[in-house]
Amino acid sequence: MPGRVLVTGASGFVGRNTLAALAARGFEVHAVARNPPAESSVQWHAADLLAPVELDELVAGVRPTHLLHLAWYAEHGRFWDAPENVDWVAASLRLLRAFAAAGGHRAVFAGTCAEYDWTGDCCSAATPLAPATPYGAAKDALRRVVDAAAPGLGVSHAWGRIFFVFGPGEPPTRVVASVARALVRGEPVDCTSGEQVRDFLYAGDLGEAFAALVDTDAVGAFDLGSGVGIRLATLLLRLQELAGRDGLVRLGGLGARPEPARIVAEPNRLTAAVGWAPGDLDAGLEATLAWWRENDVR
Amino acid sequence: MPGRVLVTGASGFVGRNTLAALAARGFEVHAVARNPPAESSVQWHAADLLAPVELDELVAGVRPTHLLHLAWYAEHGRFWDAPENVDWVAASLRLLRAFAAAGGHRAVFAGTCAEYDWTGDCCSAATPLAPATPYGAAKDALRRVVDAAAPGLGVSHAWGRIFFVFGPGEPPTRVVASVARALVRGEPVDCTSGEQVRDFLYAGDLGEAFAALVDTDAVGAFDLGSGVGIRLATLLLRLQELAGRDGLVRLGGLGARPEPARIVAEPNRLTAAVGWAPGDLDAGLEATLAWWRENDVR
Repeated sequence: MPGRVLVTGASGFVGRNTLAALAARGFEVHAVARNPPAESSVQWHAADLLAPVELDELVAGVRPTHLLHLAWYAEHGRFWDAPENVDWVAASLRLLRAFAAAGGHRAVFAGTCAEYDWTGDCCSAATPLAPATPYGAAKDALRRVVDAAAPGLGVSHAWGRIFFVFGPGEPPTRVVASVARALVRGEPVDCTSGEQVRDFLYAGDLGEAFAALVDTDAVGAFDLGSGVGIRLATLLLRLQELAGRDGLVRLGGLGARPEPARIVAEPNRLTAAVGWAPGDLDAGLEATLAWWRENDVR
Repeated sequence: MPGRVLVTGASGFVGRNTLAALAARGFEVHAVARNPPAESSVQWHAADLLAPVELDELVAGVRPTHLLHLAWYAEHGRFWDAPENVDWVAASLRLLRAFAAAGGHRAVFAGTCAEYDWTGDCCSAATPLAPATPYGAAKDALRRVVDAAAPGLGVSHAWGRIFFVFGPGEPPTRVVASVARALVRGEPVDCTSGEQVRDFLYAGDLGEAFAALVDTDAVGAFDLGSGVGIRLATLLLRLQELAGRDGLVRLGGLGARPEPARIVAEPNRLTAAVGWAPGDLDAGLEATLAWWRENDVR
């Protein structure tokens, strides 16, 4: 048994896609959410990590050996600038301290590609860390403290930067989910022209990557992406094709917003450390459509 | 009346040297310490800022318009690497949020020259921010979050980097205080050869600088130093001369430790913003000797 892992943000989009991968590696999975779902494949705990006493009691009670910290403020449209980013830096540091005090020895944190400078050729080891938003700055700053403090706390740590993720449970406020849902419904959907090149990763592959990072001792920051850039428009048209539809995705139906031209991960550090490789993109898109066929609630 | 200022770490070496400067500018000064001293020139509050409930209650009770946040873990020899640095980042962020929520609009934080890369020519605007210690990394990370979040919280903020400070109340575990005390006592004192060049600032001048920063709206980071580099050995021999002693300071009596050759502030941003300039170094050294004559308790 590799150990007992505490997963924060476990009921969120990314969290739900990590639990099975951790269980498959033999971890005893303890999942935390403010409002846990009513299902029992893992042990759920109800706690608000922004309440210091709840955080302390949770960690002291579970006594995890491993930590996967995904929880953060994530309200669509607001999270980039929200003051809650400040709270989550503080809560994450308290969590690290409580985890170490309870005997934990391996912690993995969710970072973001928004830690990088997006104005140049993003992203590689040569890309400066220069977040342009309070969200990116908060994650970047948390990573700096964790990097500096974890060794002294006896904690081996990794920082996994999330890029662009799609898949089961993605909120339909986001583009791939909104298009997948429209396609399944047979409804037209207005999109921007989608010229921007992004690194899209299936959520199940991201979950595997996080589980692999939890289950190793590789230290430092890892970019969690496929390494493959694809135009958003290309991805959406491929989704339409896989859905067996035609003419529903209306590229250019929404006005263009200023967007960085290209944001693509360089996952070679991750691959070298844990042997991870992403699955087939089409398989991920198919699984996403299948999930919406099963789970769309109008 | 400029407002009501809450000063954390107020019973510490730097804190004690800021209170009079703030009061002189017309601030209603509220000073916080875990164990406030028994004197009443300002309003003291007993609170442990690492206890979230105490922090919240303090700020909600005082409702300061201004904040000077000096409190940090400062145990000699331990603070560079201590895990408490993590706690103080978290507590400082909670303090910022509580301060903004209580209507505060101007906050000044204590930074450190240890945020800079000390391996090159330190320090100027061209010196990279590359802290080599958990202490420096924690301060640097806190600054990054404050920079990114303060505008959204409606808080005007400044970050004052402390360099090398001496004066009344300096703990005698530190070199200038230990030598001043020995000189007043007439005891010999072993020192290193003292080749390193440092920017030494009298604590009263630092207190004036912090008070000036609190009492303006200039935003960003400011290096709080004299701008003048002096060899440590030169400073200690001058202190001996001013004490009217001879032969007590034994340079080279302690083995040399590896030290950066030169760490000198560039206070031009501060001077430009608030018109501050340091006082005469000899006057500061005289005042330090006078303080030890009055306050040495064997």
